[in-house]
Amino acid sequence: MRPLVTAVDITLDRPSPSDKRADRERLLDGLVAQGITAPVEIDIDLLRILPSTLRVHDFRLQPTLGFTRDMARVLSFGGRPVYALAVDIGTTNIVASLVDVLNNKKISTLEYENPQVEFGLDVLTRVHLAMSGKAATLHEHLVSGLNTLIQKLCAAQGTTASDIYAAAFAGNTIMTHFLLNLPVHNIPVEPYIPAAHRIDFMEPKDIGLKINDRGIIYVFPNAGSYVGGDIISGILASGLYKEEQPTMLIDVGTNAEIVLGCSEWIMVGAGAAGPALEGGISEIGMRAAEGAVYNVEIDKNSHEVHMKIIGNSEPRGICGTGMIALVSELYTKGIINQQGKFIGFPERIRDVNGRQGFVLYESDTVSLIIKDTDIDNFLRSKAAMFSSLYVMVKSVGLRFGEIHKIYMSGAFGAGIDADKAVAIGMIPDIERSRLIAIGNSSLKGAEMLLMERELLPAIDRIGAMITYKEMNTEGDFMKEFPAALFLPHTDPEVLKG
Amino acid sequence: MRPLVTAVDITLDRPSPSDKRADRERLLDGLVAQGITAPVEIDIDLLRILPSTLRVHDFRLQPTLGFTRDMARVLSFGGRPVYALAVDIGTTNIVASLVDVLNNKKISTLEYENPQVEFGLDVLTRVHLAMSGKAATLHEHLVSGLNTLIQKLCAAQGTTASDIYAAAFAGNTIMTHFLLNLPVHNIPVEPYIPAAHRIDFMEPKDIGLKINDRGIIYVFPNAGSYVGGDIISGILASGLYKEEQPTMLIDVGTNAEIVLGCSEWIMVGAGAAGPALEGGISEIGMRAAEGAVYNVEIDKNSHEVHMKIIGNSEPRGICGTGMIALVSELYTKGIINQQGKFIGFPERIRDVNGRQGFVLYESDTVSLIIKDTDIDNFLRSKAAMFSSLYVMVKSVGLRFGEIHKIYMSGAFGAGIDADKAVAIGMIPDIERSRLIAIGNSSLKGAEMLLMERELLPAIDRIGAMITYKEMNTEGDFMKEFPAALFLPHTDPEVLKG
Repeated sequence: MRPLVTAVDITLDRPSPSDKRADRERLLDGLVAQGITAPVEIDIDLLRILPSTLRVHDFRLQPTLGFTRDMARVLSFGGRPVYALAVDIGTTNIVASLVDVLNNKKISTLEYENPQVEFGLDVLTRVHLAMSGKAATLHEHLVSGLNTLIQKLCAAQGTTASDIYAAAFAGNTIMTHFLLNLPVHNIPVEPYIPAAHRIDFMEPKDIGLKINDRGIIYVFPNAGSYVGGDIISGILASGLYKEEQPTMLIDVGTNAEIVLGCSEWIMVGAGAAGPALEGGISEIGMRAAEGAVYNVEIDKNSHEVHMKIIGNSEPRGICGTGMIALVSELYTKGIINQQGKFIGFPERIRDVNGRQGFVLYESDTVSLIIKDTDIDNFLRSKAAMFSSLYVMVKSVGLRFGEIHKIYMSGAFGAGIDADKAVAIGMIPDIERSRLIAIGNSSLKGAEMLLMERELLPAIDRIGAMITYKEMNTEGDFMKEFPAALFLPHTDPEVLKG
Repeated sequence: MRPLVTAVDITLDRPSPSDKRADRERLLDGLVAQGITAPVEIDIDLLRILPSTLRVHDFRLQPTLGFTRDMARVLSFGGRPVYALAVDIGTTNIVASLVDVLNNKKISTLEYENPQVEFGLDVLTRVHLAMSGKAATLHEHLVSGLNTLIQKLCAAQGTTASDIYAAAFAGNTIMTHFLLNLPVHNIPVEPYIPAAHRIDFMEPKDIGLKINDRGIIYVFPNAGSYVGGDIISGILASGLYKEEQPTMLIDVGTNAEIVLGCSEWIMVGAGAAGPALEGGISEIGMRAAEGAVYNVEIDKNSHEVHMKIIGNSEPRGICGTGMIALVSELYTKGIINQQGKFIGFPERIRDVNGRQGFVLYESDTVSLIIKDTDIDNFLRSKAAMFSSLYVMVKSVGLRFGEIHKIYMSGAFGAGIDADKAVAIGMIPDIERSRLIAIGNSSLKGAEMLLMERELLPAIDRIGAMITYKEMNTEGDFMKEFPAALFLPHTDPEVLKG
């Protein structure tokens, strides 16, 4: 592996009358001898302590090195452990993981609500706030949340933030702009222009991040206002950009993004399917945290409900994959019809404020009831998702049967029950081995880069290959959407493509 | 010309639905269109104002760019004028010139005493002071002197220091270490190891220099504790490194340095000849400033003394080239003999504290008398100089007749009367067209780099080619020295080689 930061053991010859190389050049030669071929920079203030450091340690050092594009930089003269931080900055949640680069090991992952949520759940509210003079506040809240997250990760590992020598961030274009304190003014107005697609490597002080002062900061580029670094990181993590045959990546977060492509071309479209799937729309929806129902089975005969709950605690709500499972079970077990209306199992149906609801769980303190309006909302999301997939695949003249693999990421990630998603017509009915859940692909791409700096050119290549396809306003989408509102679809043949 | 900093006029296409490039990439594409092929970095804080700057100026900008090795960096978004600073940091004097890079024009040069002189005239005193805890003070004095010089240069031009976007420094190894606040502890002790030979490009804040905050700072590399950046810069300025035939460069400052080489090899030796020639030894010696006698003619018959004086004022002392001219005239007009003892013109010889002295000038307020001890000192310097040249040329199996050109620089520079220097046997008696005075070659090399960044690889090549030859301790030197104490030499044939 060639990580973004590393430590190298070097033992240098002592100076002698026949070897009068200066300390700096002696060190650089020692690095070359250890296979560091990139030009290496040493900041002047490190250079100032190099002569004494070399002599105190009898010309043996273990410098920490950071690699930017074609350069390397000395970050310290003696560094073990060497940690790096991967961060997925979501609109709603931030997920960070700490990587021990010398041992090629992820040591922990932590999720934290994006502190900007207090300024508005949806991103447009925050953009307008930024445009009305609150940009610095939004930036500071985000960074202060990141610093808290870093403190927690370090405390749990008994390490300090100064051992973190690199951080890689992947987020949507607006979150990235907030992180960098770049103006977002031109993003929400035609023709939707970000301040930057790509950002040069930065230092922690540039954004106020509290890791090692000399640490290197990388931010995944975006491919436009609607194709963020999180998608590019996800494409990297999935390997879609290396596939010879057309492959899809579905990433569901606060928004749903759909990628279709291969090593020759990549198309990205965004849909509005996200919030319902992340657990943000139904009244009992929640994100995939402790107490969330993430899978549901309903016995066909006894009508008994079995739930799987994160943390095995009492259920507090239902997350995106739980909702998929629930609706799938309600439909396949004959409790709702093709339109999502309750038709069976009346002993569990209850009237709530004039709407019908299905009692999923009830105790003295908790009551989880799915109302028909929640199901309607969900069906709109599932229809939007399927229509987007269908329109995108059709737009390049392909059928689902010709899609090599479908990677599912984000809220759609690790926990999804593919059979149930297929049963409700949310994703196409292709061979199950070709439906692959890959968890948080945005975070995973950032982690991969931390361990393999040679992925930098691949990231740039992905960014350059992407074309953006506006989905929800497409005529085709509007045409397909109504049919997809049905369970599983008005024409099940469409699901098979 | 490809200067180290420049400004580029660009007019960018406005964003449109068919051209959604981000502001950063739009700017970079505009720079490529103007022929900037190196990767261009934009600091995050400049990027933060790019969107508004572009729109306020209707997508027309004139960014100032600085070039480091294989990279360029945006230094401002609107910069005219663009100035750069070349500095020769001598042990005794600092000389700086201000260059208008857009017009390829040197606009002024100023000389200033090195403020470190108050800590000791000679460099070893300062090194010992630095080693005993005063390093920061020495650094600060030097930089504060530089900042004063910059203020004066700017005031004289009616400009501000923020218009200076680059500074290139050439100085001996110790002065360079003081400038950078690098430790000098290992320089004066065997095996004489500098902290660094080469320094990466720096920012003004790294050394406290008051030019534009984003300006780029370049420091000429050294080739060891005794071969400084001033010599490398001088070699660059003279073009010696491109010569096909063996060529010499003599640079006389507080020390005298001799370079012999061509495009294939370069040898540098240092002699102790300097101070006497810079005007530092004789009681009436002074540097080449207003009031300094820089040339002397003595009428053979009338014995009248004609002096040329810097600034045409009343003479205050005699500088190095004046001393060469005076001793030459005293000898060729029969006033001193081969050993430098007074033998003629008794009406101008006077007894001073038991020594004989020649009255060069006398008024109510000024009395310039050259004593026989001054002449002895001078003859030791001239003997050291000639012996060094002779030993070095001989060491590579050459004769003076085979030396293509001899460039004379420093105190030996612009003002030297080559005939007179030859007459006293200080420099070899070769064809006069091959004896070329080039002024301050260290400053000139720095000025050249400011105007032509493609010289960077040449500078590195020069540094790598240099071998250092210890002169004064060589057996050959000791053998040649006594004969060279004579005027012009015990064996005038040696002068012709």
